Amino acid sequence: MDAVLSQKPWEALEHLVNAGDAGQIVIFLDQLSPTETARAISRLDAEQQTRLFGLLTPEDAADLIEDISETQAADLIEELSPQEAAAILEELDSDHVVDLLGEMDDENVTAIIDQMKPEDAEEARQFLEYPADTAGGMMISEVLSYPATLTIRELLDDLQQNRDTYADYHVQYLYVTDEQQCLYGVLRMHDLLFPLRSKKLSEVMIKNPFHVPVAANLEELGNFFAEHDLFGAPVVDAAGRLLGVVLPEAVEEARRKRSVKNYLDLSGIIGGEEFRTMPLLHRSGRRLSWLSLNIVLNIIAASVIAIYQDTLAAAITLAVFLPMVSDMSGCSGNQAVAVSMRELSLGLVRPQELLRVLGKEVSLGAINGLVLGALLGAVALLWKGNPYLGLVVGGALAVNTLVAVSLGGLLPLLLKRLKMDPALVSSPLLTTVTDMCGFFFVLSFASLVLPKLS
Amino acid sequence: MDAVLSQKPWEALEHLVNAGDAGQIVIFLDQLSPTETARAISRLDAEQQTRLFGLLTPEDAADLIEDISETQAADLIEELSPQEAAAILEELDSDHVVDLLGEMDDENVTAIIDQMKPEDAEEARQFLEYPADTAGGMMISEVLSYPATLTIRELLDDLQQNRDTYADYHVQYLYVTDEQQCLYGVLRMHDLLFPLRSKKLSEVMIKNPFHVPVAANLEELGNFFAEHDLFGAPVVDAAGRLLGVVLPEAVEEARRKRSVKNYLDLSGIIGGEEFRTMPLLHRSGRRLSWLSLNIVLNIIAASVIAIYQDTLAAAITLAVFLPMVSDMSGCSGNQAVAVSMRELSLGLVRPQELLRVLGKEVSLGAINGLVLGALLGAVALLWKGNPYLGLVVGGALAVNTLVAVSLGGLLPLLLKRLKMDPALVSSPLLTTVTDMCGFFFVLSFASLVLPKLS
Repeated sequence: MDAVLSQKPWEALEHLVNAGDAGQIVIFLDQLSPTETARAISRLDAEQQTRLFGLLTPEDAADLIEDISETQAADLIEELSPQEAAAILEELDSDHVVDLLGEMDDENVTAIIDQMKPEDAEEARQFLEYPADTAGGMMISEVLSYPATLTIRELLDDLQQNRDTYADYHVQYLYVTDEQQCLYGVLRMHDLLFPLRSKKLSEVMIKNPFHVPVAANLEELGNFFAEHDLFGAPVVDAAGRLLGVVLPEAVEEARRKRSVKNYLDLSGIIGGEEFRTMPLLHRSGRRLSWLSLNIVLNIIAASVIAIYQDTLAAAITLAVFLPMVSDMSGCSGNQAVAVSMRELSLGLVRPQELLRVLGKEVSLGAINGLVLGALLGAVALLWKGNPYLGLVVGGALAVNTLVAVSLGGLLPLLLKRLKMDPALVSSPLLTTVTDMCGFFFVLSFASLVLPKLS
Repeated sequence: MDAVLSQKPWEALEHLVNAGDAGQIVIFLDQLSPTETARAISRLDAEQQTRLFGLLTPEDAADLIEDISETQAADLIEELSPQEAAAILEELDSDHVVDLLGEMDDENVTAIIDQMKPEDAEEARQFLEYPADTAGGMMISEVLSYPATLTIRELLDDLQQNRDTYADYHVQYLYVTDEQQCLYGVLRMHDLLFPLRSKKLSEVMIKNPFHVPVAANLEELGNFFAEHDLFGAPVVDAAGRLLGVVLPEAVEEARRKRSVKNYLDLSGIIGGEEFRTMPLLHRSGRRLSWLSLNIVLNIIAASVIAIYQDTLAAAITLAVFLPMVSDMSGCSGNQAVAVSMRELSLGLVRPQELLRVLGKEVSLGAINGLVLGALLGAVALLWKGNPYLGLVVGGALAVNTLVAVSLGGLLPLLLKRLKMDPALVSSPLLTTVTDMCGFFFVLSFASLVLPKLS
């Protein structure tokens, strides 16, 4: 069997990079799906990756960048010289450029922008001013706008002449602007099909088109596309000037990224994605930074056990139930956190509606606390035949479930009001409190009936 | 101050529903953003929601349905009579209909489809056959196709005549099909602007356009749009017949839904979204179903403590460290789970690459285990002044971190190979194992040096 055929894609790529044949590399990468490309590139070591990008033209490198995840792409581009990086970025959509720069260190961003063409550099600096999850941060600047006095024929001539340039544009709508570049009207492609070609754009356009302000947030953009079934939202500044267009898939993508971030935060992966191709010490350090905060919280929670050490020594059976009560309550509380996070992100609840959430969670916490407490109490009773043990353990789980569920429901709202990130902070904070309370309830209840337990 | 002005939107809506004035309701809802609409509707009780939908025309009801989340919408529609439900669904996009039906009970689905117009019912049944996360499940059937022998003029006349119908279509491309409805070519709107109107479509179309098979999965669709910067992917069956179009925002939305599901699964909210407007016992029961499995897993893990009860009684200080070791390892393991889940969903790792992941995680687990073990060991040493306590506790955390990180990295891949849902199963399974091992390492290490500890 041919050795080349049995190679894995990244082995073949490695081979081609070492051979230094740019033409073969482009042909080879064209055969791979974007997922395969991303995987193959991620398996090269840093030096080979840099060599690969040095071999490719900026256009080919930009095509490659579009296939891989932003985190991967930003890491790669940071390894290149600012000149090489700038040349590649100039081949990408404006919103993609900003997303990539947003993942890099500030000094690298400045160095790269300094190497871009003046007008591209100016645009990149301006776009970086807009927060990522706003219309400004999500829009593309590749948009066609024409003066209202133009005729349809003149517009069609322009389209015809610049066909190659516009091929990369997301041309869905043609915008009409006045002398101050203020948004004045919109035309759909098929609005140009039927009228006389001598008509002026002002005669055929739709006036005062729907638009969004540059500061519109993700919720407002989601609402825009839910209300208007359009292929793009023109973005205007405070003076009404047309700045760019937000595409509906950019809004969906931003919403997806937010939910991925929630997932990663909840799992203790902070500061963005981690890939196993990143350097070991970098990965280890990032994970440790979150874990070492957690170890402090754990020590605080476990100190409750230290205080009640004598009670525990007198009724050692309780040690079996301590982690069960705290773990179970933590799980119940995290369910409530997740429901609040989702309701917040869907706009079904406002951060100030604490009482409403509390009411809903207290009743649920009471029911689930009773059920789970009865279950665990029964287990304890059956195991040791001691009804007091069952009461202590079951009672503690019941009360702690109520505490955990109520607190879990409220925490995301409270953190949001305090301008903290609920996805990141809710779960560690909740676990600490439910651990402490769980240990406290079991051991303090036990101390009340200690003679009956031992 | 006017009492009506100070009302919250749902109070005003409740008022209008009770008054039964459909015209006023439509005017009122038009003023609200989709998020406000969703919130207002969710605050009505089930009876008022049913009355609201009874008052509206199917068109207005469909507009309302588009504003609210699918889970909410499906719950609402299930409360209506099958006739009312069918009338509303017929006003919606085909992929939206299927998404909604997919959230309902089978008997309700059958009852509603039976009330739809025969051709719509036929289509709905066919669409329901396609798995949700495939091209078939995501496509819309509202697509324009024409025979190749048509002239541009005839096509434009058709567009002109059916302008009202097509307004609801996502017309980006016009497809050309042969007599067997097989996909033959594609035309962009602006391809019609310049050629002579007497030309046949076959002369101006792009032949053999890019397309996706009806069974294409989410990864393949993501790859399609990453490779081709298009506004839609035509979907064909095995015989090459054009079935519909998948829009890029539908693919982004499906990817977002998947990541929301991962988040909910991880938090113990299973079987889809939970909203606080759902009936209390329904919410409680769903959360309990997951918790009661968890209680069993907890009992299994804690039984290790029961076995080592005498060791623990002889060195009661260890009780403080037991939950810390198990919690911390659980956190470390869940970080590894999250990284594997992300790499799997981005296609950066394949389920069979167990050894690669193991290699990457063992080295990281060893480093983080040493760091965290040293930290916790130092805390124990400083607290009690006993180096053996520090060694036992620190050693147990170090070893258990290594176990947790390695297992956490592998579990999602293993579960995927076993065709189980890694998002749902990884975390509870991991926690059980890391709890058991954590208890075991602390207590068995302690039993080796017991005289030195007490």
